[in-house]
Amino acid sequence: MNKQVLLAERPVGMPTDSTWTYQTTKIPEILDGEILVKNHYISLDPAMRGWIREGKSYIEPVEVGGIMRAGTVGEVIKVNNNPQFKAGDFVCGWGGVQEFTVTDGKGFHTVDPANAALESYLGIIGMPGMTAYFGILKVAELKKGDIVLVSAAAGAVGSLVGQIAKIKGCRVVGIAGGKTKCDYLVNELNFDAAIDYKNDNIYSGLKAHCPKGIDVFFDNVGGAILDGALTKLRRNARVVICGAISQYNSTSKPKGPSNYLSLLVNRASMKGMVVFDYQDQYPEAIADYLKWIQTEQIKSRADIYEGIENFNDLFLKLFSGEKIGKLILKVNN
Amino acid sequence: MNKQVLLAERPVGMPTDSTWTYQTTKIPEILDGEILVKNHYISLDPAMRGWIREGKSYIEPVEVGGIMRAGTVGEVIKVNNNPQFKAGDFVCGWGGVQEFTVTDGKGFHTVDPANAALESYLGIIGMPGMTAYFGILKVAELKKGDIVLVSAAAGAVGSLVGQIAKIKGCRVVGIAGGKTKCDYLVNELNFDAAIDYKNDNIYSGLKAHCPKGIDVFFDNVGGAILDGALTKLRRNARVVICGAISQYNSTSKPKGPSNYLSLLVNRASMKGMVVFDYQDQYPEAIADYLKWIQTEQIKSRADIYEGIENFNDLFLKLFSGEKIGKLILKVNN
Repeated sequence: MNKQVLLAERPVGMPTDSTWTYQTTKIPEILDGEILVKNHYISLDPAMRGWIREGKSYIEPVEVGGIMRAGTVGEVIKVNNNPQFKAGDFVCGWGGVQEFTVTDGKGFHTVDPANAALESYLGIIGMPGMTAYFGILKVAELKKGDIVLVSAAAGAVGSLVGQIAKIKGCRVVGIAGGKTKCDYLVNELNFDAAIDYKNDNIYSGLKAHCPKGIDVFFDNVGGAILDGALTKLRRNARVVICGAISQYNSTSKPKGPSNYLSLLVNRASMKGMVVFDYQDQYPEAIADYLKWIQTEQIKSRADIYEGIENFNDLFLKLFSGEKIGKLILKVNN
Repeated sequence: MNKQVLLAERPVGMPTDSTWTYQTTKIPEILDGEILVKNHYISLDPAMRGWIREGKSYIEPVEVGGIMRAGTVGEVIKVNNNPQFKAGDFVCGWGGVQEFTVTDGKGFHTVDPANAALESYLGIIGMPGMTAYFGILKVAELKKGDIVLVSAAAGAVGSLVGQIAKIKGCRVVGIAGGKTKCDYLVNELNFDAAIDYKNDNIYSGLKAHCPKGIDVFFDNVGGAILDGALTKLRRNARVVICGAISQYNSTSKPKGPSNYLSLLVNRASMKGMVVFDYQDQYPEAIADYLKWIQTEQIKSRADIYEGIENFNDLFLKLFSGEKIGKLILKVNN
């Protein structure tokens, strides 16, 4: 039997249990060319909130009544005439929020558990890792000596952005919510400083830790934090718009950054990114990450939870700030 | 005697007559190394509103009690031991809002009235012209075939931006207020279409005239127009933030662009510019303009008013939309 999570209705504001249909179905016979994957880990990412919204975006929205889209890593347990895979292969792909996935294998690729822990393929060497790597190196055009500010800095993407910038010889300041996360950034991840936006004023934090301003702001959050960071831009600064987690569940229009004219005064740029554009270059990023992991120059952390029936509660942890690092749902123990 | 306009106080919101001190003083004897310039034309530009605001910007604010800063063009009528200038020279520089300027010549350069009408040195071959040229060609990185949207399109900068984009083989749509300006754009300046934001809905105008979206948005206005344009960005679009005339006199914080996440979805960029950064390359731009004027590929228009004592009323025309093209104050007939 296969436990699945389907999109029941498009949520207005924060998703609730009624956003989803939880169902258990029989696993169908697989057809010619198909494979059956037993999923081990399901990825939970803030971007998923965008995928259930109607309207034009960088990807088609999940259909109402369809399996909720999610990245997965799992094991191939049955193959029906598909030369690309064999039983026992571990594969990464868009398996969706379900325990088993039947697929023709399109969009799936094999991964080697000997190279890295299986869940890493959803984190540091998966979508968040690729986002951090190409976002900070290509979109922000990071240079040695840059002063780098990162929001959601204890998250799956932000934590890697900051560590890459440290490796490249930059001063790195992270913004995160709460003392635990801020301590983690400075003590574990080698950030130069952290601003606790839940307990400190963002403006005084920036004044204290970025007295010379910032060259790069890597933003995952939007709202008041983006607005604050804009006041500290240096000449030719680059703002990377990677996400806007503070706005995703808003029932009103997103709050635009009032201080955007700082772009003019400082000849600065604000640039959006979508990680899928860099797919051809993923191998380069993965090679760098595996090297950095081995040399202990970079650390990643996953918060792993079980219980597909708790999907909504877990999903909300993306927005409540209750987790550190990459959020993962483990299925099929 | 010299009629002068000084900054009396920093205005909150729209400037009024009490923002300025109007005074008449005796022209002082010029000292060793100085020249006396009889100003003919004084430039009125939206950027001047920024120069009287306190706070860090790309240029020092005008001091309270100081002569109001303005670009000028005039004739040297006295020289005291300054080898760079001679009586009878025409010069362009920061003469300020006054009939006569005493200066050591720093920041002034001679201009040739045979090359172009004297007032052009404040318009098409002056600051607005340079802003348009470098903004659309360098900052927007214009490419042949781009769909270009320009706000304040009948203004000194916007009208040139659109015409340059036409010369470079682009489709150009202008946004302006009122039928007269929109007709001017399409019938006189060769724009492909115009959206009258005062009488049409900006969203339906964009839908009608930019059905395929836009590659470049050159924004002089900010506010609702910027927000609307962001919804029409194509993949890899470039937004040039040249100004935000709708926000300059606001007594509250500027309205940030709510739709800024369109930058993410469309991998687009929003970039600020300050024309002074391109000073080294002005000669290239001037040569192109003089060629385009001669071949009648480009037109420029100045709205010229007299009466330095009406400075505040004229200044407000920058924001009320009551003029077409470059706004100029003529003094010393």
